Amino acid sequence: MSPGSTVIDLLIEARWVVPVEPHAVVLENHAVAVDQGVIVALLPIAEARAAYAPRERIELGEHALIPGLVNTHTHNPMTLLRGLADDLPLMVWLQQHIWPVEGQVIGPEFVRDGVELAVAEMLRGGTTCANENYFFPDVIGATYRRLGFRATVGLPVIEFPTAWAKSQDEYFERATEVHDSFRGDALIATAFAPHAPYTVSDQSFERIRVLADQLDIPVHLHTHETAHEVEEEKRKSGLRPFQRLQQLGLVNDRLIAVHMTQLTDGEIAACAETGVSVVHCPESNLKLASGFCPAEKLRLAGVNVAIGTDGCASNNDLDMFGEMRTAAMLAKAVSNDAAAFDAAYALRAATLNGARAMGLEGKIGSIERGKQADLAAVRLSDLETQPLFHVASQLVYATGRHQVTDVWIAGRRKLADRILVDMDVDGIRARTHAWRDRIAAIDAHG
Amino acid sequence: MSPGSTVIDLLIEARWVVPVEPHAVVLENHAVAVDQGVIVALLPIAEARAAYAPRERIELGEHALIPGLVNTHTHNPMTLLRGLADDLPLMVWLQQHIWPVEGQVIGPEFVRDGVELAVAEMLRGGTTCANENYFFPDVIGATYRRLGFRATVGLPVIEFPTAWAKSQDEYFERATEVHDSFRGDALIATAFAPHAPYTVSDQSFERIRVLADQLDIPVHLHTHETAHEVEEEKRKSGLRPFQRLQQLGLVNDRLIAVHMTQLTDGEIAACAETGVSVVHCPESNLKLASGFCPAEKLRLAGVNVAIGTDGCASNNDLDMFGEMRTAAMLAKAVSNDAAAFDAAYALRAATLNGARAMGLEGKIGSIERGKQADLAAVRLSDLETQPLFHVASQLVYATGRHQVTDVWIAGRRKLADRILVDMDVDGIRARTHAWRDRIAAIDAHG
Repeated sequence: MSPGSTVIDLLIEARWVVPVEPHAVVLENHAVAVDQGVIVALLPIAEARAAYAPRERIELGEHALIPGLVNTHTHNPMTLLRGLADDLPLMVWLQQHIWPVEGQVIGPEFVRDGVELAVAEMLRGGTTCANENYFFPDVIGATYRRLGFRATVGLPVIEFPTAWAKSQDEYFERATEVHDSFRGDALIATAFAPHAPYTVSDQSFERIRVLADQLDIPVHLHTHETAHEVEEEKRKSGLRPFQRLQQLGLVNDRLIAVHMTQLTDGEIAACAETGVSVVHCPESNLKLASGFCPAEKLRLAGVNVAIGTDGCASNNDLDMFGEMRTAAMLAKAVSNDAAAFDAAYALRAATLNGARAMGLEGKIGSIERGKQADLAAVRLSDLETQPLFHVASQLVYATGRHQVTDVWIAGRRKLADRILVDMDVDGIRARTHAWRDRIAAIDAHG
Repeated sequence: MSPGSTVIDLLIEARWVVPVEPHAVVLENHAVAVDQGVIVALLPIAEARAAYAPRERIELGEHALIPGLVNTHTHNPMTLLRGLADDLPLMVWLQQHIWPVEGQVIGPEFVRDGVELAVAEMLRGGTTCANENYFFPDVIGATYRRLGFRATVGLPVIEFPTAWAKSQDEYFERATEVHDSFRGDALIATAFAPHAPYTVSDQSFERIRVLADQLDIPVHLHTHETAHEVEEEKRKSGLRPFQRLQQLGLVNDRLIAVHMTQLTDGEIAACAETGVSVVHCPESNLKLASGFCPAEKLRLAGVNVAIGTDGCASNNDLDMFGEMRTAAMLAKAVSNDAAAFDAAYALRAATLNGARAMGLEGKIGSIERGKQADLAAVRLSDLETQPLFHVASQLVYATGRHQVTDVWIAGRRKLADRILVDMDVDGIRARTHAWRDRIAAIDAHG
């Protein structure tokens, strides 16, 4: 067979390709052709070799190639607080540990160093996109851009002064400034990130609704995280938080509703009808005893269910393989149906559904012609993933994130045979150690 | 400082040692001295160097040394069925996949090859002891012994003929034969393994009670796995399975009760009073939608709670790090208390409590003078476990099993810097592939 003649940047040949779209398909011995950061074809290896003359060719003989995982709810600067205070009641955790420490450390350096550590961890685990939610989105976005990592950066709004902004007007000024600074960026998008119904006023929500429409960006919001939150809102406004959001006009296809452990059937139906995306954070919900998100009911109703790790101060990792597994297992127990939330759906939730939540489904989330080449290669030859009967099952129920060998974002190789490309790992280690000592000292005397 | 003069086999120096007993203690810069397979001292590194002249010295500058993990409920031959049939209702899974395949493959070769694959996986994940439950315990025990792995081998009793035995008398004959063949073995112990109350007659349970007392061995039993099981027993005998076991005299400190998702407060109190051990298999319970074990209630009542992975056909791995994490997280959600089942207790459940369930608490399960040197070293310098504030939290909530670098059983190194010692990995791979093809063919035509 003579080699092909069409010159392209990259041809990745894999034992298996899981494109996610079409759903629940596993292709054997297929190749992904990439040029200028974009997937130009997905086809059998033999056909690919006949068609293309790639500048670089990667052979993945024991691997599944999947879309890069999309972590649809993170607070990545908090990676520096990993495991600071576990096994504590929520309010003790927040009031005696997290807030006192954050009060002393939040600023551009903390945010930059936390995101850099998080990017290293995410790349080593096959994640290529984060839906970020933290203060200093300017620094966060700049850090992701510098590291070549894809992110939607939340523009925080909260009803009290912080290191990021002192007044409501300032939150909105800074939000639009940050949005403008990333306009047209290849990797960085923005979303409004009002913290939660209990910390954001009706007036601010109204401004967000108008501005989100004008700027055409999502609204990324924690809500219905706990029964307590729902009860408190009813006590204050007479409404459940979701009802209040409905009245404010925020229940629509821009809304990325995170946690959602407390839902009536009517609220689930409303999410489906209006195109709300729900981000399920199963490990955070378990670990903080927040409640059980009805993920399978949401799926059955047709709601777009995505998956997030939440921040490392609560979870305590950015492991989307673990999060997929927990989501799939927990949904079975909660719905009392061992067939619920199957492996193929878990993969979809962790990729394409996350992209859709962020309004990026035309760009990422599946291995399809015309999409960005955001890809992860997962080695399935380890003894822990043998024997191999079904690739999707193996990826969700038996694979560890350390089996990710290679990662590409927009066609650029970011992890090469487990080595982080162009990242200052020694520097990350040194800065993490320094933050560790400083934070431990604050926490000890807090 | 002059070196010590007492000659010993091995000195392991670690950045941290987590002995498990005393509870919730982390020792810094300590060493474990080992001679003739036994821990002879646990002391600060400087003191150890002054006292001992070890034949071998291991420095673990970035590691936590923990007791080898104890997987207190496994069906390890079924590792060859990993991921064969997922996301199915229990009866479809059993009747259309697992049982037809087992019917054609169960025998000495399947059991031997499955256990060998499982031992490789367990060692690579820091597990040093398995409480095994499957047919052909003679072959299972011989395989564990040949590989130098510690196990309690279940002596199966079930009320219908199988490849292992054709009649009740034959089950008991073979049970006593197998028990006798391992009498006095350094690594292999036995337990009766009646399958479950719904598959074992009163008459057999009575024989087991008498024989277990005579032989002084545990009784390892699945029970109260699902609400359906409890309802069916009530329909048949008028009793809940636990009540029936009480009447049969089996509720005592020999009983290793696996799953236990359906429990009244009275049953929990009875477990505590009589010394029953409960094996919590959180991931199996979730994945098969079996129900939620009240693990925190059991802990608070003083019941000995151990942890098991269950077989790879349901779970789908033998990852005790994952199982600890899931146990700790799930208990918080189920008990609605973020402080429940903390990291130190999860480590204890996965080590010393398992040993106690098997009657081996004088021999293994903690790093104490006089116990067998069953140890695992866990590298905590990976970016995924940085920063490090609390060692126990990090082990339970952030560490992957691939961070286990070294494992010893009875002082013999079984994993050395991630390499399996004296195991035929190529042979394991080849045999696993062959079984994979044979099983896939049976399943396709089943």
